[in-house]
Amino acid sequence: MKKIIECVPNFSEGRNNHKIEKIIRAFKNKDNVKLLDCQQDKDHNRMVVTIVGEPKAVTFSVVESIRIAVDIIDMRKHQGQHPRMGAVDVVPFIPVKEMNMQDAIKLSKDVAKKVADKCDLPVFLYEASASRDHCQNLSEIRKGQFEGMDEKLKSQKWRPDFGPSQKHPTAGVTAIGARMPLIAFNVNLDTDNLNIAKKIAKKIRFSSGGLPFCKAIGIDLKDKGMVQVSMNMTDYTQTGLFESFNQIKKEADKHGVRVCGSEIVGLVPMAALMNTAEHYLGLQGFSMEQILEARIME
Amino acid sequence: MKKIIECVPNFSEGRNNHKIEKIIRAFKNKDNVKLLDCQQDKDHNRMVVTIVGEPKAVTFSVVESIRIAVDIIDMRKHQGQHPRMGAVDVVPFIPVKEMNMQDAIKLSKDVAKKVADKCDLPVFLYEASASRDHCQNLSEIRKGQFEGMDEKLKSQKWRPDFGPSQKHPTAGVTAIGARMPLIAFNVNLDTDNLNIAKKIAKKIRFSSGGLPFCKAIGIDLKDKGMVQVSMNMTDYTQTGLFESFNQIKKEADKHGVRVCGSEIVGLVPMAALMNTAEHYLGLQGFSMEQILEARIME
Repeated sequence: MKKIIECVPNFSEGRNNHKIEKIIRAFKNKDNVKLLDCQQDKDHNRMVVTIVGEPKAVTFSVVESIRIAVDIIDMRKHQGQHPRMGAVDVVPFIPVKEMNMQDAIKLSKDVAKKVADKCDLPVFLYEASASRDHCQNLSEIRKGQFEGMDEKLKSQKWRPDFGPSQKHPTAGVTAIGARMPLIAFNVNLDTDNLNIAKKIAKKIRFSSGGLPFCKAIGIDLKDKGMVQVSMNMTDYTQTGLFESFNQIKKEADKHGVRVCGSEIVGLVPMAALMNTAEHYLGLQGFSMEQILEARIME
Repeated sequence: MKKIIECVPNFSEGRNNHKIEKIIRAFKNKDNVKLLDCQQDKDHNRMVVTIVGEPKAVTFSVVESIRIAVDIIDMRKHQGQHPRMGAVDVVPFIPVKEMNMQDAIKLSKDVAKKVADKCDLPVFLYEASASRDHCQNLSEIRKGQFEGMDEKLKSQKWRPDFGPSQKHPTAGVTAIGARMPLIAFNVNLDTDNLNIAKKIAKKIRFSSGGLPFCKAIGIDLKDKGMVQVSMNMTDYTQTGLFESFNQIKKEADKHGVRVCGSEIVGLVPMAALMNTAEHYLGLQGFSMEQILEARIME
């Protein structure tokens, strides 16, 4: 596989195993599609699927899964703790290998158009695929949830990008878009003073004037007797892990506090670690093609 | 592919395209075997092939290629600048994924036994597979080259591990073994004083009391007006890139010289860069399974 795209569709079904199985079947035993993860949450009544693979094969599987979910999930009866607006709540596409953001945006639009036509489903483009500024943020689109969509879609401002301008009676509304991979990256501080973690988080997060593509909060690790700057890095190609790490170290120094380790939660693209090694070793002229495993995957 | 092994067989044919093609065919269009690289050198009259893949498939291809090379290469007529003792001079196996050194050693011995039996070929086990200390080093085994093997093999000390104790009349002798991946890692110094690079190289290489699994020399980069500590890291799991880098930086400091960059020449296993990122970020509890691309390869 030369090109690889990741897709993380969120379905509003986390309880009925029969229905869950029907949806997941779209991703199983398919050439050039790999089901990496499937998290079902009964309280949220929601299922989050992670697949990767060759763009055409992934597109085909995702469209099929959406068609099935729209058929079998009835949002009029849906209850769960997680906010939701449709049977297929949100479908982000993430470029992984030999694809850039523009490729992922194009693919997300293709899928949006296809499922809107096939399923008579209103679809909003969000994040990097958004056609309008106010549609970039998923939570803005989702405000009002399934029950409020009848009213919301009446306004010109909330006209869907594809499909009808009324919500689907049973499947509601879907958001489809492209985004960079999220990296959950946490840095631990050798102090139990939560205030310091909060101050550093405020310094480094973009929303309060810090690093671009960095979200950060300070949290208490009571069991460990330390505090943590917990981050979501939303575009590691713009702000690397090493940049937030170095910045936190600098700020911690000012407080006379030591950084005592870090962790990555969940998956991370190889390139994010490569950038880190490149930075610290001052590597010049290095290319992903030199990584043995990347060559094997060609 | 769960398990991946790399193999870099060296054949004593770098001129005759017809023969080269016959040998390479053993690695082409084979399921679960990927031909990564093939370097033919007319002066050396030698061909170095790099393949990776699933252990059984790689074993099969390598045995086939050796059988063909033994058939068609006549060492009595072989001339070239590179020292050599056989039609298939040396065959190292390198563990890449979900295999450790013990697995690679076992595989190398299986292949050695197979080709010794099939081709009536004397085979020495070398490097990590060596059964005797004096056979670890390839150049010790090869001393005397093809022409000297008749005499050499008469002594008890140079009894082959497998196969007859006379050289093959046309194909000579072969060394087969397992080793860790080599990483060619160079660090540049912001000075044109070659003496400093040589001094630092001497400090950090194992043979003069420095870091284990680190070979180093000082070289002049005349075009760039700087000097370089040029290294072969022979087991990055024992001595990481970051360790030699940090050590060179420390030594350079003593000379008042700045490290101004580094380079990796050729391929590098993902884990060597991962270790580097882990070290500098103080990453805790990180596993290869968290690398997105590694998950895709499962």
